[in-house]
Amino acid sequence: MTLIKEMTSGSEFVGFYLLRELEVKQTNGTPPKDYFDIVLCDASGQISAKYWDVSPAEKSLFAPMGLVKVQGIVQLYREKLQVKVNRIRPTTEQDGVAIADFIKAAPIAAVDLVNTIRRTALDISDAELRGLVEYCLDKVGDKLSHYPAAKTHHHNYYSGLAYHTVRMLELGEFLCGQRPFLNANLLRAGILLHDIAKTEELTASLGIVSEYSLQGKLIGHIAMASQWVTEAALQLGIRTDSPKVVALQHLILSHHNLGEWGSPVQPQTAEAIALHYIDSLDAKLQMAEDALGALPEHEAWTPPIRGLEGKAIYRTHLG
Amino acid sequence: MTLIKEMTSGSEFVGFYLLRELEVKQTNGTPPKDYFDIVLCDASGQISAKYWDVSPAEKSLFAPMGLVKVQGIVQLYREKLQVKVNRIRPTTEQDGVAIADFIKAAPIAAVDLVNTIRRTALDISDAELRGLVEYCLDKVGDKLSHYPAAKTHHHNYYSGLAYHTVRMLELGEFLCGQRPFLNANLLRAGILLHDIAKTEELTASLGIVSEYSLQGKLIGHIAMASQWVTEAALQLGIRTDSPKVVALQHLILSHHNLGEWGSPVQPQTAEAIALHYIDSLDAKLQMAEDALGALPEHEAWTPPIRGLEGKAIYRTHLG
Amino acid sequence: MTLIKEMTSGSEFVGFYLLRELEVKQTNGTPPKDYFDIVLCDASGQISAKYWDVSPAEKSLFAPMGLVKVQGIVQLYREKLQVKVNRIRPTTEQDGVAIADFIKAAPIAAVDLVNTIRRTALDISDAELRGLVEYCLDKVGDKLSHYPAAKTHHHNYYSGLAYHTVRMLELGEFLCGQRPFLNANLLRAGILLHDIAKTEELTASLGIVSEYSLQGKLIGHIAMASQWVTEAALQLGIRTDSPKVVALQHLILSHHNLGEWGSPVQPQTAEAIALHYIDSLDAKLQMAEDALGALPEHEAWTPPIRGLEGKAIYRTHLG
Amino acid sequence: MTLIKEMTSGSEFVGFYLLRELEVKQTNGTPPKDYFDIVLCDASGQISAKYWDVSPAEKSLFAPMGLVKVQGIVQLYREKLQVKVNRIRPTTEQDGVAIADFIKAAPIAAVDLVNTIRRTALDISDAELRGLVEYCLDKVGDKLSHYPAAKTHHHNYYSGLAYHTVRMLELGEFLCGQRPFLNANLLRAGILLHDIAKTEELTASLGIVSEYSLQGKLIGHIAMASQWVTEAALQLGIRTDSPKVVALQHLILSHHNLGEWGSPVQPQTAEAIALHYIDSLDAKLQMAEDALGALPEHEAWTPPIRGLEGKAIYRTHLG
Amino acid sequence: MTLIKEMTSGSEFVGFYLLRELEVKQTNGTPPKDYFDIVLCDASGQISAKYWDVSPAEKSLFAPMGLVKVQGIVQLYREKLQVKVNRIRPTTEQDGVAIADFIKAAPIAAVDLVNTIRRTALDISDAELRGLVEYCLDKVGDKLSHYPAAKTHHHNYYSGLAYHTVRMLELGEFLCGQRPFLNANLLRAGILLHDIAKTEELTASLGIVSEYSLQGKLIGHIAMASQWVTEAALQLGIRTDSPKVVALQHLILSHHNLGEWGSPVQPQTAEAIALHYIDSLDAKLQMAEDALGALPEHEAWTPPIRGLEGKAIYRTHLG
Amino acid sequence: MTLIKEMTSGSEFVGFYLLRELEVKQTNGTPPKDYFDIVLCDASGQISAKYWDVSPAEKSLFAPMGLVKVQGIVQLYREKLQVKVNRIRPTTEQDGVAIADFIKAAPIAAVDLVNTIRRTALDISDAELRGLVEYCLDKVGDKLSHYPAAKTHHHNYYSGLAYHTVRMLELGEFLCGQRPFLNANLLRAGILLHDIAKTEELTASLGIVSEYSLQGKLIGHIAMASQWVTEAALQLGIRTDSPKVVALQHLILSHHNLGEWGSPVQPQTAEAIALHYIDSLDAKLQMAEDALGALPEHEAWTPPIRGLEGKAIYRTHLG
Repeated sequence: MTLIKEMTSGSEFVGFYLLRELEVKQTNGTPPKDYFDIVLCDASGQISAKYWDVSPAEKSLFAPMGLVKVQGIVQLYREKLQVKVNRIRPTTEQDGVAIADFIKAAPIAAVDLVNTIRRTALDISDAELRGLVEYCLDKVGDKLSHYPAAKTHHHNYYSGLAYHTVRMLELGEFLCGQRPFLNANLLRAGILLHDIAKTEELTASLGIVSEYSLQGKLIGHIAMASQWVTEAALQLGIRTDSPKVVALQHLILSHHNLGEWGSPVQPQTAEAIALHYIDSLDAKLQMAEDALGALPEHEAWTPPIRGLEGKAIYRTHLG
Repeated sequence: MTLIKEMTSGSEFVGFYLLRELEVKQTNGTPPKDYFDIVLCDASGQISAKYWDVSPAEKSLFAPMGLVKVQGIVQLYREKLQVKVNRIRPTTEQDGVAIADFIKAAPIAAVDLVNTIRRTALDISDAELRGLVEYCLDKVGDKLSHYPAAKTHHHNYYSGLAYHTVRMLELGEFLCGQRPFLNANLLRAGILLHDIAKTEELTASLGIVSEYSLQGKLIGHIAMASQWVTEAALQLGIRTDSPKVVALQHLILSHHNLGEWGSPVQPQTAEAIALHYIDSLDAKLQMAEDALGALPEHEAWTPPIRGLEGKAIYRTHLG
Repeated sequence: MTLIKEMTSGSEFVGFYLLRELEVKQTNGTPPKDYFDIVLCDASGQISAKYWDVSPAEKSLFAPMGLVKVQGIVQLYREKLQVKVNRIRPTTEQDGVAIADFIKAAPIAAVDLVNTIRRTALDISDAELRGLVEYCLDKVGDKLSHYPAAKTHHHNYYSGLAYHTVRMLELGEFLCGQRPFLNANLLRAGILLHDIAKTEELTASLGIVSEYSLQGKLIGHIAMASQWVTEAALQLGIRTDSPKVVALQHLILSHHNLGEWGSPVQPQTAEAIALHYIDSLDAKLQMAEDALGALPEHEAWTPPIRGLEGKAIYRTHLG
Repeated sequence: MTLIKEMTSGSEFVGFYLLRELEVKQTNGTPPKDYFDIVLCDASGQISAKYWDVSPAEKSLFAPMGLVKVQGIVQLYREKLQVKVNRIRPTTEQDGVAIADFIKAAPIAAVDLVNTIRRTALDISDAELRGLVEYCLDKVGDKLSHYPAAKTHHHNYYSGLAYHTVRMLELGEFLCGQRPFLNANLLRAGILLHDIAKTEELTASLGIVSEYSLQGKLIGHIAMASQWVTEAALQLGIRTDSPKVVALQHLILSHHNLGEWGSPVQPQTAEAIALHYIDSLDAKLQMAEDALGALPEHEAWTPPIRGLEGKAIYRTHLG
Repeated sequence: MTLIKEMTSGSEFVGFYLLRELEVKQTNGTPPKDYFDIVLCDASGQISAKYWDVSPAEKSLFAPMGLVKVQGIVQLYREKLQVKVNRIRPTTEQDGVAIADFIKAAPIAAVDLVNTIRRTALDISDAELRGLVEYCLDKVGDKLSHYPAAKTHHHNYYSGLAYHTVRMLELGEFLCGQRPFLNANLLRAGILLHDIAKTEELTASLGIVSEYSLQGKLIGHIAMASQWVTEAALQLGIRTDSPKVVALQHLILSHHNLGEWGSPVQPQTAEAIALHYIDSLDAKLQMAEDALGALPEHEAWTPPIRGLEGKAIYRTHLG
Repeated sequence: MTLIKEMTSGSEFVGFYLLRELEVKQTNGTPPKDYFDIVLCDASGQISAKYWDVSPAEKSLFAPMGLVKVQGIVQLYREKLQVKVNRIRPTTEQDGVAIADFIKAAPIAAVDLVNTIRRTALDISDAELRGLVEYCLDKVGDKLSHYPAAKTHHHNYYSGLAYHTVRMLELGEFLCGQRPFLNANLLRAGILLHDIAKTEELTASLGIVSEYSLQGKLIGHIAMASQWVTEAALQLGIRTDSPKVVALQHLILSHHNLGEWGSPVQPQTAEAIALHYIDSLDAKLQMAEDALGALPEHEAWTPPIRGLEGKAIYRTHLG
């Protein structure tokens, strides 16, 4: 079976894929004919596709986010690869394929990521901070295990948010070892909650974001997470102006560092500074790692990456 | 009695003033001698002053924010006017002066401003919005009547916040008349709450801000006010993600318009756009009106004003 | 008859529309065939259209800005709606349709807007300011009644400029009531003339801008309007460096506030500050009002609006 | 006699200088005593000075911009050199000193600069452009010979404006030779008029700017010069919208290149581009040349220069 | 024969052109058919073209950068002109056409440009500077004669780099005459080397850049040229920290003036300032001259030019 | 003995300090008298001081960077603490004090830092990269052990550069463990060399920078270090355009990330991205740690820190 990332112009193929997007459109001809405008994906990447001769029966047979078997040919269209679908059908149980195999996911299992997150929360020795964190984790529920961290920017896949959080926790532990003056409980709490409201900011399924929610647009995940801490404090009987609540909200509110990046206040504690730079370091390196990982073996340059100053990244190989 | 704004270099005077700031310092001489580094103010403005020959007894006689009788001479020092104090004493009851006469205040009485604010809140016909607003107004208590709206930027005087709010309400009513598609209840609620958390962001007395509070620095009045709405909703049994709560928080969070001006999200409803521009228009015109009002009659140009692109303002008189 | 703003993919329709743009193009086939690339509009909006099988006779039958009767079907093409025209013919007198019904226009009649403008000019009690204003209004002639205020930014329709001016005058009167220190004559004159040279900057017909004029590009409406005041002063025998001329030119030159927005000087009088913020407030709210008005009833979000920080606007409905 | 630029800390001197600024101030002592706060200058530079024991008679003896004989000592005060004046008196005819010897001036005589300017204007072979230019030169009158080009930025000395203009004309002739597609008449006219309104924007005497005029602040030299061309056209019977008037006004209006540098439109003709870069090149090199020329021989670095990205300039000497 | 810049929609033509780009693609039909996606060019400009019915034999007959004879028709496609090729064949010797006639080139012969460059290098009277310059010129070898100065920005044609260099040398000589304080040897050396490493930064053939090299992307021509001077110094036995090496590297490193334009340091010598502004002036004027030269005679406005603030340029014709 | 960071207004003290800066100045009196303008420092901080009655003998007794015994009193002058020195003398051997005890230094001994650096260089398993690194380390010699990393920005003390390097190496090892796709040899080499040329950019003694060198200003440490790699390659017989040299120079040149921060190219390999963010993280956290460490115990806020967006940092203490 051909991985999408290995497809090249002119090659023909048969294989199973996830029908990530599907729209029925009409050709310009007279009379106009229906066709499918499709995005196929597997764990290695995604590609747009056309299926030209759609029968009325087929129109009700397919829906976005379903698995399909496709026979097609890869063509070059406007400088980009595109699949011309010759045959397509929904998969059946006999095909023995599972949706989880066709989506991009973090390299660590969701259950392990959630365990690490939950265990770290339990390890916060300050009862109030621990309470605030656990309240918010509980509020998020199951989304913690599978949500992506962004629509396209970074960690935009199944369990991306949890993976980002766990990696940041590791980095945080390392830094607290290097610099004991940092308050480890506060830094852990900040890492655990800094992006937690992305679970409400984004509408996602199987790690794929379809859109921003109304709250996501009008409030944003930064102010939302801070408001969740207010809510947690009220429910737990902690004063909303107590130093711990304020310090934790400060970490959340300032973690984008600058106003033009969405933070209404700038970092003013060492832990807030640490949080911002841990977040940046992890996100930027992940962008580079993911972009290089998605690159066919024989290619040296990724496409330009918006989050990396719009630069393409070169694969270092020094022999 | 000489108004501070009318003082000129070389003039001698006797009068009552408010001792806005007072610090005991030492001269460079051997042995060093104590002197008072002072800021005097009245309703027309403020001026720095020195009192050189402080006796030990006098050191315990004065405190900031007390009224004093001063005899002194005005001098030019480093391009600025400064008072050399010859005699100074605290006022007594017999002097018949009241502190309220010596501080800058809004041109409308505090009680009237608060009445207008309270009545407008009552007039919000939507019960949930009215509830959220009144909860926050109650929370602020007495500060609503006397707090300034800023440390130096604009409306930085007694009742400045209430005055700014009332003027914006008038402008809002006018606009809702011009453009009936605007939701008047929401806009009123947004105007009433947009700066309400300045009462916690700033530490102020008699309309004079001494500093930013810890919460003011780490959270800021924008996120704080939005969190108060969360708190109000929880206390009143309104869902925190209900459309009215979200719409009102959006107005508060976006009212500085841009991220670099402190808003974590940008205006995305017509009412949010209206709120931002009403706020700007009122603040900018007030800066110009106050700066021109503080200018001696015969002068044409104010000092440069940071909030007005750093420009000095020219007094238009077209005969 | 189907309003353009209510058209949906797949619907067929017959109706009258304005042929806003028309270009004859060739298909890629061999031999290439002529087709019409069209923009249809009515008062509710506009849509692009294709008419595929153009006969030689038809090529001379149609011209831009003519009224046509169209039978067609709405299709989705590259994420946008587009009309496939099946039949098209120019309207005749018998159809009983008038061009004025098919263009977007201000909600107040042109004649009323011009009356308000003229009456306000007459009401300027300072003879010199009144003379300068009337000279410029006379110079513009008939364009005052129908010109739009911009190509796409805001008030881009029939009588848009006059409508913007009248709304700003109302706001200006309100503010002069709130703040009597403002010079009402000067502010009125500034509002009346601030965008007056848009009538030379833009080439427009029926409220639709086709392009910028040479003077519009090389001089711009800001410097042009200021030069008209110079011309008016010379013709009326007023010194070009008299305080009133300078003050009025200052309002015109500074009304975009910042250099990067096109103003060679920044506002330095209270009236200039007022003019800029009145202009912003009116333009921004009108953008939001027009974008929401053009939205089909069941939709909640407008497209992104460049003049509103590139944000889409959400229709507030709080039940 | 000691040149100001050669003064060093601790040195005593006697010499003639120009009293560029003079203010009578009072010491902090009791009773306060009068002293003179002075700026002395000669053709090599300027230095601040204090004269401590001023007698009442002396207070009426001196005025700014008069020549004086000074005996004093150079001291270091707050990292800067300053003169402590021991004796000072106005010069008399017997001293045989002339004010022209004590001010900084262009290295070419004013009369020669004006001749070059006038001859170049006459050489413009297009009668209308020549007429517009000569009208503006006539309007300026005598100021053309002695005005500086700026308060501090560049060419801030006697005949600085004429010198800048002549150097730019030379560069313009060279470029028109290199690139014959340029319209030499238009470029000459643009160079001659681009800064001509600095004669009204600035209030200057002997090449020293004391302040910006009201028109300078509210209109600025860019819009002012463009308006002079409007006035010239009206007086000469040339249509204000004729291509030559528009092209010349475009050069003037766009010569600062960017909005944030004060140009309401950006260069859109080859001649406008040429004018901007000729202006920059001449101004920047003159800043460097003047700063290095004012540097004592043994020093390698000038002070930071705002117009050169805030950089200090290093004197190249490669042996 | 029809010049590309003179082609208009609908015209048919036969002529010789350079096949600048050639890609074999497939149509969307079933079965997909091969076609050529082509860019044709001549000395006057370039145009995209399609050749629809490619036979298998033809696929091996053509290669990019070969000369071809074409019979075709010009059509309008998505607002742009495009050629539909009817017949195409490679040229033969009998056709008597030479590739040099079909590429855009500097208006002065390469051999003359190189002679001027070499002679100027020889004229540098300082032996060390001369040695450094000649080492770098030798290193570049033949590329000096034909390399362009950029991919698209300016001087993007055969001998563009040498032409830019020679014009800058002329301007440099003129300025050293105007301002003798400039070190002419250093300025010449800086002009000769400032863009010299573009020969390694870009991969070009016949004056056409196909891409940036790896070094070009990872090091850039500015740091590369500076490193060549280090290498030259080491090979010639000159200390790498000697004043001449440092001064010359400073000119190279700072010649883009600002960090955001690629210079790691800003100009801090008069020669470095001169170099930057000479470079700007020459590049900007050339952009305007080339864009106007490429414009059909009857058109007045060029397309927008990125290097000129994104502005279109107007052809001045004042009769 | 009183630590400088613990001094408070009004306190008298006797102790040993380092005379970090010393200038002889004159008072304004008649006759002017000499006094010392001094900066005293110890390992905890620094303070300015005045010694008023300097005898001629004393003027030759003291020099900057000498140890002194001081008896003085702390005063408040212009909002800042300042010492009035009553008695001062150079230390003698009997005093038993060593200069190393009075300067701020990294918390790890220089010898250990250098050992770690040298051992890491030896551990680079790629011979060419190792050779390039060792060449540069050898070139720096002894300065590696004691140089600061900056004048004021961060790590501005004895062994600051080595300390910064070692901390970054630790962080680099951690990240290479987390993300094995990173080339550990290249990242180590980049960390070791990224700031190595600060040893030539800055002129420093005992960890205190007195100024930038000529090369530091005209070339800068970024381009200088890259040129050292060129030199190393030439001396070691490695091609200057080999992938390893280019990759290493890329890390050095891009490590400030943006052009406006001094990097002529932006990071385009994963290792370059890692280097930049490791550098930022370490520098920012060190700024916060040092500023909090220099704060008297009872204070909660540091002064504003330029490298941390100009924000003051709050000491987190959550009980």
